[in-house]
Amino acid sequence: MNALDLQHGRVDLSHGSGGRAMAQLIAQLFTREFDNEFLAQGDDGARLPHTEGRLVLTTDSHVVSPLFFPGGDIGCLSVHGCINDIAVMGAQPLYLTAGFILEEGFPLADLGRIVASMAQAAREAGVLVVAGDTKVVEQGKADGVFITTAGLGVLREGVDLSGANARPGDAILVSGMLGDHGMAVLSKRENMDFGTTLLSDTAALHRLIARMLDAVPGIHVLRDPTRGGVATTLNEIATQSGVGMLIEEAKLPLRPQVAAGCELLGLDPLYIANEGKLVAICAAADAQGLLAAMRADPLGANADIIGTVGERDPHCFVQMRTSLGGLRVVDWLAGEQLPRIC
Amino acid sequence: MNALDLQHGRVDLSHGSGGRAMAQLIAQLFTREFDNEFLAQGDDGARLPHTEGRLVLTTDSHVVSPLFFPGGDIGCLSVHGCINDIAVMGAQPLYLTAGFILEEGFPLADLGRIVASMAQAAREAGVLVVAGDTKVVEQGKADGVFITTAGLGVLREGVDLSGANARPGDAILVSGMLGDHGMAVLSKRENMDFGTTLLSDTAALHRLIARMLDAVPGIHVLRDPTRGGVATTLNEIATQSGVGMLIEEAKLPLRPQVAAGCELLGLDPLYIANEGKLVAICAAADAQGLLAAMRADPLGANADIIGTVGERDPHCFVQMRTSLGGLRVVDWLAGEQLPRIC
Repeated sequence: MNALDLQHGRVDLSHGSGGRAMAQLIAQLFTREFDNEFLAQGDDGARLPHTEGRLVLTTDSHVVSPLFFPGGDIGCLSVHGCINDIAVMGAQPLYLTAGFILEEGFPLADLGRIVASMAQAAREAGVLVVAGDTKVVEQGKADGVFITTAGLGVLREGVDLSGANARPGDAILVSGMLGDHGMAVLSKRENMDFGTTLLSDTAALHRLIARMLDAVPGIHVLRDPTRGGVATTLNEIATQSGVGMLIEEAKLPLRPQVAAGCELLGLDPLYIANEGKLVAICAAADAQGLLAAMRADPLGANADIIGTVGERDPHCFVQMRTSLGGLRVVDWLAGEQLPRIC
Repeated sequence: MNALDLQHGRVDLSHGSGGRAMAQLIAQLFTREFDNEFLAQGDDGARLPHTEGRLVLTTDSHVVSPLFFPGGDIGCLSVHGCINDIAVMGAQPLYLTAGFILEEGFPLADLGRIVASMAQAAREAGVLVVAGDTKVVEQGKADGVFITTAGLGVLREGVDLSGANARPGDAILVSGMLGDHGMAVLSKRENMDFGTTLLSDTAALHRLIARMLDAVPGIHVLRDPTRGGVATTLNEIATQSGVGMLIEEAKLPLRPQVAAGCELLGLDPLYIANEGKLVAICAAADAQGLLAAMRADPLGANADIIGTVGERDPHCFVQMRTSLGGLRVVDWLAGEQLPRIC
């Protein structure tokens, strides 16, 4: 089998045809980078070891533009995003799959960087990419590369996490600085300069979450505020639980660059995407213990309690007390603030 | 929440933003059509029931063009393809996920047809679509809709199916007429008329496979010859098993329209994609019993024994005895015969 030219070559339609070129791409890039016994089986699916428990299954498609941004790229993002969706359910992430849709003409060198970044993210997180698929479409029919990951985890015993579990009086926490991912992608896309480089917060949250569940097994809700930011996540949870919420603007952890960038662009940081942060909701009595557990983890160092769950409320309003002391409704995002952020 | 205009509306970027429009799309299309308790949980992943066994995990991206073709569409294809990848491993398919990448401007009515077709295919097959994701990209950055499905199944006890298990002397069987899917898509794409309408064979094969494994638990290899057709599948298996193969052209089940279409277009039916067929390899002594089990199922009515596995062979050549009595090598596809066939 000839060697792929991973330095100067480009994706062509034959890499998705099922023939020799696809076999080369799989052998010389994917199975080499992801390197595990399950992918190496080379069959239509991965045969995994005996597993027992309540399973969690999830999927995420990734279309971020640009593909490479400060602090990350579509590769590690697609691994972190899928791990986080499993972890916020209270499950240990174990196995991922990856479906690639490639545009004809895409540089193999860029694909190589993306796959290496995925593989590194998976290794660091202790999960295995066990199955994959590659399709190629004609130039102009996609945008470089889209990656859809799916993930499987096993639910931790004794947890019951759901967006439907927020109860009146509960505390609302976030794990750190908000809006870093969205503003990092935007800065690259728009070629903006914030003085210092702002990096995406893309990260796998499962170890932080394990630490949190060790401290407070009875956490009510965990969710990662990605697309649509904290505002959208809180609205989803409020609707699922049938409650109102009140958050404090002064308590929102924000980097000065993100605050400044948002002001400049007329954006609201509450709606900006995060890729390595979580929202947690727990009983008020557990809040300080949970906060301490979060702050003990590097990914939760800037965690804070940002608000409380209000009464049962058919309107499920999320409100914010502003720094000036007023109250405003934090509504669902009606249109599209930042397309293709993840 | 306002109603989506599923008749005249179009996908816009807000349907992928995480905001209200996305919540509408999920509530009024996806959870309504796929209708099951796991998707209805509305969380970041699906919490599934207690499961025990050896799991099989797989994924498939779908970029077929056109999206609607005689006998099917990208929706049912994405369900069948994923089910078949699980089933040929000897596993019972249970749960699917679906990641949608939508192009801005795509008609919601077409999306509705596609999702309904997926839901019907899943119902008929007895599997549940338990988690999903939707992203939207700008007009011209995708091609209508791409769908990536991932699937989870539990391995049947006592089976050991792998492309690496073909042994010298084994019989090679196919489950029916070859090339229907590829020629049906091509006929629609090129606006060709074969006299009678040729339909894609897209179908879920797990029940046929269960019947086959009931009859012959020790089948060595099962695989569905999709992209690249039977020729590619046999080359993959020959390479994985380190053997040669010999097939008989006269035994290949082919519809006259497919044979005629291939001749007209200079295509080789051995390389044309199938989406509801399988290749099976078993011990010679089991071949008649397996063939009888296949023919007893509607999806295996035209099954036949098409060849035998040769000796251990470092070149892993697949050869065909032609109808004229000559021998030719059935090589890997070097370039791209039919892009975007699945």
